[in-house]
Amino acid sequence: MPKKVVKAAANTYYFQYPALATIVTVRSAEKDNAISIAWHMTVSREPPYYAISVAPSRYSHRMLLESGEFVVNFVPFEKHELVAGIGGCSGSNTDKVALFGLRGEQGSEVGALVLDDAYAAYECRVVGRHTYGDHDVFIAEIVAFHYDPDLFTSAGIVDVGKLKPNVFLGEDRYTRPASEEPVLVSRGAAARAARERKA
Amino acid sequence: MPKKVVKAAANTYYFQYPALATIVTVRSAEKDNAISIAWHMTVSREPPYYAISVAPSRYSHRMLLESGEFVVNFVPFEKHELVAGIGGCSGSNTDKVALFGLRGEQGSEVGALVLDDAYAAYECRVVGRHTYGDHDVFIAEIVAFHYDPDLFTSAGIVDVGKLKPNVFLGEDRYTRPASEEPVLVSRGAAARAARERKA
Repeated sequence: MPKKVVKAAANTYYFQYPALATIVTVRSAEKDNAISIAWHMTVSREPPYYAISVAPSRYSHRMLLESGEFVVNFVPFEKHELVAGIGGCSGSNTDKVALFGLRGEQGSEVGALVLDDAYAAYECRVVGRHTYGDHDVFIAEIVAFHYDPDLFTSAGIVDVGKLKPNVFLGEDRYTRPASEEPVLVSRGAAARAARERKA
Repeated sequence: MPKKVVKAAANTYYFQYPALATIVTVRSAEKDNAISIAWHMTVSREPPYYAISVAPSRYSHRMLLESGEFVVNFVPFEKHELVAGIGGCSGSNTDKVALFGLRGEQGSEVGALVLDDAYAAYECRVVGRHTYGDHDVFIAEIVAFHYDPDLFTSAGIVDVGKLKPNVFLGEDRYTRPASEEPVLVSRGAAARAARERKA
């Protein structure tokens, strides 16, 4: 077991990282904005649903409520300063698209930007919102998938030899996956091997 | 923009990875079980809430409903075969604790196991459940945090020089973070730098 246990809520806690630091784009009333999000996850395979958690205090929260749409942009490690910068100012008083020179096109199904900086992006339409603590969980259907096929294997897995996703470690720290070839372990084979060892 | 866009739901899709592959433990009616989960995220800072997505077809789903508790165990890369094996069989016909020789202790606040293999673990008590597509999102309060202080920096960030978390790339592929020192980019400084470049 890990050595230490704390029961007091640790206001900020980073033990659950690494996770990808993404750029979520929103568009409302013909205004574009972008936020940095590491609190996201897959929810459902079929139909495909995705979740992000956003604080109501964020300017983009209102835009999400108004538009009901967003795009999750997955960006490479090289963009970690952009991700940090987007997280360091607010759309309430900053045109982030102009400040950071963001380029992209509106999605095919939603109005938010699919960024040129992204190697993959999910166009999302909100289907539910649930308030928990200091954040709202937005659940959305992925209505279009964008990806660069040159950077993924034929099975659709990111090719870490060609592309290093932007991996967030908490606070203001970023890294990338190792360059080594990923290991391949079939879950069925791993379960069978355990049974054979046990027999 | 990424080169390719598909609108048909891609039954399985991996563009959102890497994400940590964790072992979630559950206990109900004095029976322990474990499942592999890469669909998890932080929801709220204060109070601390965490989310996992679990298919109703999974045996552990019923145990989650019965107990309303679980533990998210964060394990090192070295345990990827264990994670795969746990994902390759079902608690409906397998005693996974015995099969995989899982060792640990019940949590301080919940009945599920905190595993010896974990470098950090979150004891969780379910506060909400929401069905979306083929999965249920369980939202839980983190009622106790376990971690090994030797493996984290004083700021609570995983020390990738000492510890490599188990990074899942999709399908049956695993890797780890690079060994290099993470970059440190203050979000405030990054936003100021963009303003200065723009000015």
